Amino acid sequence: MPLFSRLIRSAALLISFLFTHQLTYSQTISISDFGVKPDTYENITPRIQKIIDEAITRHSTKLIFPKGRYDFWPDGAIRAKYFVSNTSTEEEDSTKIKTIGMLFKNAKNLTIDGNGSLFIFHGKMTTIVLDQCENVILQNIHVDFERPTMSEMRYVKVSAQGVDLEIHPDAKYSISNGQLIWHGEGWKTTHFHGVEFDTTMKTMRYSDWKILNNSKATELRPNLVHFDTPSDFKPKQGNILTVRDIIRDQVGMLILQSKNIKLEDVGMHYMHGLGIVSQYTENITMHRVTCAPREETKRIIASSADFMHFSGCRGQITVEDCKFSGAHDDPINIHGTNLRMIEKINKNRLKLRFMHGQSYGFNAFSTGDTVAFVHAATMIRFEKGIVKTVERVNDRDIILTFQSVVPAGLEAHDCVENMTWTPQVFIKNNYFTRTNTRGILLTTPRKAVVESNIFYRTGMSAILIEADAEGWYESGPVRDVTIRNNQFIDCAYQGGPGNAVIGINPSNKIADFKKPVHSNIRIENNVFTTFDFPVLYAKSTQGLIFSRNTIIRSNTLPAESDNKKMFYFNGCSQVEITNTKMSGDVLGKNIKTENMPKTGLKVTGSKRLSIE
Amino acid sequence: MPLFSRLIRSAALLISFLFTHQLTYSQTISISDFGVKPDTYENITPRIQKIIDEAITRHSTKLIFPKGRYDFWPDGAIRAKYFVSNTSTEEEDSTKIKTIGMLFKNAKNLTIDGNGSLFIFHGKMTTIVLDQCENVILQNIHVDFERPTMSEMRYVKVSAQGVDLEIHPDAKYSISNGQLIWHGEGWKTTHFHGVEFDTTMKTMRYSDWKILNNSKATELRPNLVHFDTPSDFKPKQGNILTVRDIIRDQVGMLILQSKNIKLEDVGMHYMHGLGIVSQYTENITMHRVTCAPREETKRIIASSADFMHFSGCRGQITVEDCKFSGAHDDPINIHGTNLRMIEKINKNRLKLRFMHGQSYGFNAFSTGDTVAFVHAATMIRFEKGIVKTVERVNDRDIILTFQSVVPAGLEAHDCVENMTWTPQVFIKNNYFTRTNTRGILLTTPRKAVVESNIFYRTGMSAILIEADAEGWYESGPVRDVTIRNNQFIDCAYQGGPGNAVIGINPSNKIADFKKPVHSNIRIENNVFTTFDFPVLYAKSTQGLIFSRNTIIRSNTLPAESDNKKMFYFNGCSQVEITNTKMSGDVLGKNIKTENMPKTGLKVTGSKRLSIE
Repeated sequence: MPLFSRLIRSAALLISFLFTHQLTYSQTISISDFGVKPDTYENITPRIQKIIDEAITRHSTKLIFPKGRYDFWPDGAIRAKYFVSNTSTEEEDSTKIKTIGMLFKNAKNLTIDGNGSLFIFHGKMTTIVLDQCENVILQNIHVDFERPTMSEMRYVKVSAQGVDLEIHPDAKYSISNGQLIWHGEGWKTTHFHGVEFDTTMKTMRYSDWKILNNSKATELRPNLVHFDTPSDFKPKQGNILTVRDIIRDQVGMLILQSKNIKLEDVGMHYMHGLGIVSQYTENITMHRVTCAPREETKRIIASSADFMHFSGCRGQITVEDCKFSGAHDDPINIHGTNLRMIEKINKNRLKLRFMHGQSYGFNAFSTGDTVAFVHAATMIRFEKGIVKTVERVNDRDIILTFQSVVPAGLEAHDCVENMTWTPQVFIKNNYFTRTNTRGILLTTPRKAVVESNIFYRTGMSAILIEADAEGWYESGPVRDVTIRNNQFIDCAYQGGPGNAVIGINPSNKIADFKKPVHSNIRIENNVFTTFDFPVLYAKSTQGLIFSRNTIIRSNTLPAESDNKKMFYFNGCSQVEITNTKMSGDVLGKNIKTENMPKTGLKVTGSKRLSIE
Repeated sequence: MPLFSRLIRSAALLISFLFTHQLTYSQTISISDFGVKPDTYENITPRIQKIIDEAITRHSTKLIFPKGRYDFWPDGAIRAKYFVSNTSTEEEDSTKIKTIGMLFKNAKNLTIDGNGSLFIFHGKMTTIVLDQCENVILQNIHVDFERPTMSEMRYVKVSAQGVDLEIHPDAKYSISNGQLIWHGEGWKTTHFHGVEFDTTMKTMRYSDWKILNNSKATELRPNLVHFDTPSDFKPKQGNILTVRDIIRDQVGMLILQSKNIKLEDVGMHYMHGLGIVSQYTENITMHRVTCAPREETKRIIASSADFMHFSGCRGQITVEDCKFSGAHDDPINIHGTNLRMIEKINKNRLKLRFMHGQSYGFNAFSTGDTVAFVHAATMIRFEKGIVKTVERVNDRDIILTFQSVVPAGLEAHDCVENMTWTPQVFIKNNYFTRTNTRGILLTTPRKAVVESNIFYRTGMSAILIEADAEGWYESGPVRDVTIRNNQFIDCAYQGGPGNAVIGINPSNKIADFKKPVHSNIRIENNVFTTFDFPVLYAKSTQGLIFSRNTIIRSNTLPAESDNKKMFYFNGCSQVEITNTKMSGDVLGKNIKTENMPKTGLKVTGSKRLSIE
């Protein structure tokens, strides 16, 4: 090769090398490049935050954690104010300050890869926050707490002299003046909430901690405590009692005002306060996310409340191939927030207020958003409007100016619902178990599909469609819901609203079939294995199809519901029950209707069913 | 009363009230005035520091903690650089940053009263620092750690298949790939040091953790772990193994460049790194200070190293009515620091260097201090000088300018000792036990009295007087030591320097009786209960009186020392042994001398003693 060619070639190689190296430098960051190593048990919070900020500044596309254990302590964590849906009230926590393990602010096109690492958090922390992020993937990580804020213990002896509780090694306690105190890394439980897990029946029920709290506690040996309970206190030996503080001063994870967020192969093994909260975010995919305790911890609860909470999101919410086990509330809860009109300032200006104590202060409206005006009493969206400007008056109140005049029919207590920030929902192939409440709480006016899931012994309804403008102010009427190919196994053993495996139960007080709240719900090709009467309860629903479902009698649990109807329709219309198969000695086989004409119900191909 | 008088009286009352109130306001502060409550288990570190600063600014005379438990976490703690004697080397911790629970800086005339409160610290912290304080009393407090950096465990089963260790509930561990890992609140043990406590013999001996560290660990149940140790590994069942990290990156408490400091009714129940370090402080009283684990914890160790370490102090050190139990090193260590001359810059200027890796960087000299020039080889203070100026070259080196020319006889390797900063010492009525090293290490040229103490099974000498310019560079020759009315019970079972209950063992290499290092030591009216030969070993001492002491044979432990002499004098002069009582079949009853003429020893009223 002539010299000139060789030189050219060398220069080209050099340029190529530099270019590649530069790309590598700017695109992928490993925390090991910054000297952070796994398995040191040291606090990495402040060092990791610097690396995250660096990754965002550099526009890195990948942030890598070599596999191992990483410990996050509040020490050196970013403290930032975040108003989060369904968390602590102003009285409970006026600061709204979250202690954040990892804050990703304005991250774009970034994949965070844990390579199967275990992130152990300490104290009360919000593990991860994605704030105004776009195209961010969180993958291959496991998140847990060294000392969860949930205390777990097992009744190992029950006698007339009291009970012995074996306390899980992760649950730290003291006994002071004969009273047992639950405490942890910088906290103490004061507002008790107890849920008891029946280890043979696999059910979860509310349990009053007061009985134990008021009984003299004596340590027999470390982690074995005797309580002098009243002689009539007879809990089931072997059962596991789980106790937490009800104050939701942190959340598990927060995804806020972001777009195109994906969690894949993520394990959330404990979350304090509330689970993964997605708020005013567009397009979220949860794929192979496990919300359950790590098996090796032998704990049974993984969240103080909901596992996945979606509030005011839009675009597409996908939850697929996930596992949910061990929550003190609903595994999935998808809703918006209705704000109540408190003052009509002028013809196109309204002052609105967040009504529920736990949900306020967030940016519920943007310019250009389409809203619905909702009659609180009937839950009916009677007119639409478009937001021109938004003024935040304070944490509770917002003044909206609309492009047009607000409807004349607006009444006191009526609400405004943000229709732009409502999502399509696709929930497929997930497993739900070990919750004392629902499997899925769902209200969105857009298309929702719940398919091929297994619901195993959820305490209340496996799926509940509510919509209310009274209690939680969680919007709103559904328009297009498909529930198909699911298995419901021994669900709703606690009763709950409407006391049915599937409940459709909006908050309107008068169920008038001419003024439906929900519409267009199809329940198709599911298998209901149940020990009790109620399979479906529906209220104020227009267009409800229950088609090609199988109902199988189970004898695992006693039938206890006050509702002795397999189907209960209240103020519904265009209801069709077709081709229902029944296997075994199913209970009831009956249909009850009220506040609706007989013509509102059509039953075909379901011979054993009787209409009452 | 006429109106005018009433008015005058009212005004007087008002003024009196305001004055009293003002005095109360400025003189006493309770942390409860600032909303800090006990027993919350919350981190109070940052809030307490603000209150402390406020108390100091207000010139308060009393800072009160209502009785209860208070938790201190590193989160929000002051981080400050402190060079502390005998702590981590530069390689181990170059930052020298201490994480401080409570920093009292420039506090004057202040009493801190805990009212019996328990201060629980978390992670690795220096609990309290008194920096440049004067007339400060610390009283009625108990200090402990939630998870001490010491891991304690008991051999509950020993067989050919290995050993089972029951791990103390406070010792947090993981097992990863068959290896047991000790970890805690933000740390992991990596540089292991093990000491084993014989629960029947009450002795402490070094134990090699490597055997267990290299054996496969299997958890049998929480806090019970089996190790596949070699079949010839046969520890004593019931013994307690205690393991720590040797890195001294924090200290228990630091009293620095202060004056008139008193600790009274204080319990130090665990200290990490080193114990209470007093450094360049004038007048310190330790009264009823308990350095021992809290009984309710059932732990056996209360410090990673020395309990009370006095380095370069002056005035009076009083340690009275204290209890010392459970240290991985000496309960009391009092010394100065010799700096080596590394360069004679000119006739009155020397460059000096801190020689020991662990002790450097502190302000070892001030203008006006009197120093001694010390021949390293003989430890003899051959001349004095007065410091004119001090220049800190770096953390290791100091340049001193003297008022006069430095002595011509100064040789390479000779040292400079600060004589101004040496204390009088009074150690009375204390109880020493459960240490694998000494009870008291003492070197001061001023008057020292050690009386009416009980030394129960200290591993090495109960009292050791060293002085060296070679190893630890801890000064210096003693001039006036009285050891009287003490009880020594089964001490020095480990041997150690000189292998005697009382050891006088300076580091000079040639023991020439004409060049004594120590002088004027009286050991009077003590009771030595011992299972072994050596009672007193002395080297290079002039004027050593052993008078009216009783020696009693004990059969509790086997005689093991290589030194088969009751008394061993090496290069001493003016030694007198008078009126020694012996009770039971005491061993040896012999006196060995070397490097000294027979005339150097006078024995009277001790008939059973033979001179070899």
